[in-house]
Amino acid sequence: MITPILPIIHGRQEHESGGYRRETIDLEFSNGERRKYERISSRGHGAVMIAAIPEPGTILLIREYAAGVHRYELGLPKGRLDAGETVLDAANRELKEETGFGARKLTHLRSITLAPGYMTHEIQLVLAEDLYPERLAGDEPEELEVIPWKLDALHELVLREDCSEGRSLAGMFIVREVLAQR
Amino acid sequence: MITPILPIIHGRQEHESGGYRRETIDLEFSNGERRKYERISSRGHGAVMIAAIPEPGTILLIREYAAGVHRYELGLPKGRLDAGETVLDAANRELKEETGFGARKLTHLRSITLAPGYMTHEIQLVLAEDLYPERLAGDEPEELEVIPWKLDALHELVLREDCSEGRSLAGMFIVREVLAQR
Repeated sequence: MITPILPIIHGRQEHESGGYRRETIDLEFSNGERRKYERISSRGHGAVMIAAIPEPGTILLIREYAAGVHRYELGLPKGRLDAGETVLDAANRELKEETGFGARKLTHLRSITLAPGYMTHEIQLVLAEDLYPERLAGDEPEELEVIPWKLDALHELVLREDCSEGRSLAGMFIVREVLAQR
Repeated sequence: MITPILPIIHGRQEHESGGYRRETIDLEFSNGERRKYERISSRGHGAVMIAAIPEPGTILLIREYAAGVHRYELGLPKGRLDAGETVLDAANRELKEETGFGARKLTHLRSITLAPGYMTHEIQLVLAEDLYPERLAGDEPEELEVIPWKLDALHELVLREDCSEGRSLAGMFIVREVLAQR
């Protein structure tokens, strides 16, 4: 593979609109081509997604109402960081709120982007192991169903309409690969 | 698994802001809890992501500048539908523009959502097989690097910083599972 040369950013212009921070960047590509790109900046302190392993070969899914598509969706627990909170602390808090388990072992695996072509949004994928029962009250309108799923049965999810989120599906497969490489 | 009862939508309020269509929905959950959720509606005619198989066991990746994270990203070819275009026609057009191949066999696999909790956005995953060389001019500022990747080497991508998009990673693993089940 060649090593691509990043475009030069000649200018940036920020504009607030509709609760979003947008930025127009003036780019010059290495071939001399000049373009303006618009991107949306994320707000808040970041976000975290948790792959919790209750026993070897199993991952915890939750089923939660998803307003964007108006259906219940199977996926990994996730949430936003509070101000001053670390990624691992946020992961453990969200895990306790959404599944009723805490984790003694938390490992940051990677950042996953939402739509890197035009959004800055990232979510941090955290592997949670050595679980113990502990529930924290969250802001969910109803208790979430927690579903342990076998990692060797992920193929049963890949064409399920109610398991549709790219980040969640990616997270499950990433963790399966990471655990297989141990 | 239990079959969850969808919340009742008591009202919707649309508001345009900052080029986005947002909707506030007034929900009543099956336990009587009442909440207002805000969601962002996608624009345009839809989007498509292509998993192209140039030979058995191999998938075509592209490397493209991603303005949201200001780096070159490895991922699947994708793009937006033009007005009046079908999903499969858009998939073949984008494939020709971004990789220089067309496909004689195109199969719609599923919809993948972006952030279903608060966005309506979906992208259609299309499997492209029986490829032949054909290039169409796209609107890219520079020619994209096309990288054939072995499906049994996806584990080498799962912790790469420059292969970060949830939908792309999900698409690769979904296609590997679908092909393995044939």
